[in-house]
Amino acid sequence: MKLGTVQRDGAERVVVAVDDQRAALLEPGLTMSSLIADWAAAQSAVRRSVEQSVERSATVGVGDLEWLPPVPRPGKVICIALNNSANADRIMSGPAHPAAFTKPASSLLGHRRPIRLKREYGRVHPEPELAVVIGAGGADISPGAALGHVFGYTIINDLTSPTMRAEDTFHYRAIHPRADGADGVEYVDTWVSYPGRYKGADGFGPIGPWIATADSVPDPHDLTVSCVHQGRLVTSDSTANLMHKVDDVIAFVSSYQTLEPGDIIAMGTALKPSATGGSAIQNVNLVALGGPIEVTISAIGTLSNPVELR
Amino acid sequence: MKLGTVQRDGAERVVVAVDDQRAALLEPGLTMSSLIADWAAAQSAVRRSVEQSVERSATVGVGDLEWLPPVPRPGKVICIALNNSANADRIMSGPAHPAAFTKPASSLLGHRRPIRLKREYGRVHPEPELAVVIGAGGADISPGAALGHVFGYTIINDLTSPTMRAEDTFHYRAIHPRADGADGVEYVDTWVSYPGRYKGADGFGPIGPWIATADSVPDPHDLTVSCVHQGRLVTSDSTANLMHKVDDVIAFVSSYQTLEPGDIIAMGTALKPSATGGSAIQNVNLVALGGPIEVTISAIGTLSNPVELR
Repeated sequence: MKLGTVQRDGAERVVVAVDDQRAALLEPGLTMSSLIADWAAAQSAVRRSVEQSVERSATVGVGDLEWLPPVPRPGKVICIALNNSANADRIMSGPAHPAAFTKPASSLLGHRRPIRLKREYGRVHPEPELAVVIGAGGADISPGAALGHVFGYTIINDLTSPTMRAEDTFHYRAIHPRADGADGVEYVDTWVSYPGRYKGADGFGPIGPWIATADSVPDPHDLTVSCVHQGRLVTSDSTANLMHKVDDVIAFVSSYQTLEPGDIIAMGTALKPSATGGSAIQNVNLVALGGPIEVTISAIGTLSNPVELR
Repeated sequence: MKLGTVQRDGAERVVVAVDDQRAALLEPGLTMSSLIADWAAAQSAVRRSVEQSVERSATVGVGDLEWLPPVPRPGKVICIALNNSANADRIMSGPAHPAAFTKPASSLLGHRRPIRLKREYGRVHPEPELAVVIGAGGADISPGAALGHVFGYTIINDLTSPTMRAEDTFHYRAIHPRADGADGVEYVDTWVSYPGRYKGADGFGPIGPWIATADSVPDPHDLTVSCVHQGRLVTSDSTANLMHKVDDVIAFVSSYQTLEPGDIIAMGTALKPSATGGSAIQNVNLVALGGPIEVTISAIGTLSNPVELR
């Protein structure tokens, strides 16, 4: 099943895909969060509601929907960094485990909503990614149990400004306790970068349109990921190239951070350039070039957004 | 006025300080978020409710309260990095503007709740900070209008693991577009660090107990900040030493990120060692030494948490 959230007559509504053209609106008052919290009990009623919409010819055209992020206000959006096997030969040093940052809910944007950028952001490029939507929450989840905590999968375009990343990096002498164990401190030459702005600005998280429920995605590591800019195929990759897999990521993240229903985990950028595109996502500077920018993942759908300067 | 959120008979309740010993519980169903969203209209009813509690001797002892974060589920917690004038001579390079990261709501912890740490986090130290609670939201707020967007001020202990920070730092060759403007890419030697774990683990955000409303804090840059570990005064600082001031921070952050009612901005660590303490906050490794760890800010109160290993 594929579910999304839209705005309809000023209210938030959950929609379910009937086919590529049509969707069924669920009753007002139901939210994606309430469905996720109680999916085992809710899903048969959802199926019945969709059947009734079809019988009554009460479906709506997918093209007429005003999309919101599928989970409009997730508790957290955890993004895994540098998680594509193509990165391996670029990393001089780094952790063997997944490393993460968070994007705030305020940075998320629905399908077809304009990404509104400022010139002073410098360069801003797309990063096409598979995103996991957490169903049952938990802490210290084992790798074997991890996929049972997945409600479904969606698409996120993890917009990034390398200009702001460079600006918000400090080279400084960090204060450490003395290495010899005595009281007092010593200074250690350290680089630290802060992603609040370069990953978290308004509109830096286009997401959706659909969540494909876990049962409809038998293998999350066998999905094609492509990115198209202004009609040109830029990225042609596969989730097979994720270094840290969904189950290991859920296990690792939940070992330090309680996962909650509706939390999003972005699995890391698919960045293999297409055979014909001739450029990398880093060449797609949306501030200079504009949109639309599109990400397609097999079994889920296509996320497309125009770009505006503000 | 000073307001907080507590758990009472299984439900979330807003409390208002009557004096140092007593607080008035507001009616069930009211939340801090609903009060913040409508404070201009709500505050006279709140004052009346507090007066009635006092008249009826229906106040509760402050010591008997079970504290939650004062805003239990803020949309975002924005933390300003390296924002104390004592840092200036340690920074070899870095931005002239405020740099930020976010902590997820799941990392927040109420006053007196135990900070539950794992040995594998390595070192974990406290960072005492003034936190701004946003009232009216907005984007592109001018410095002159910024303080009008402050609902109040609270205390946050921005727990940090320098061990996990070092582990989650990459030295890598970042992909950049070619500097000569031609299509194609070049590689740039880059350091990048990801704060998802070292700043966002469960319990890394003790916050509260009180929000002092903006009208009760005439100058947020004239507050003493102290940190006490196991009865020993470690930090004795003042918000006068914040490099970027509250109004400039709100203006800068809102220039790239829409602020929403209830959002929290942690203003950066107060780190001046006390004259008598003999050590820095970086020496206070809570994993090895345990708690309690206490942060006091004048006009707001004291935030105290025990520490447990899990």
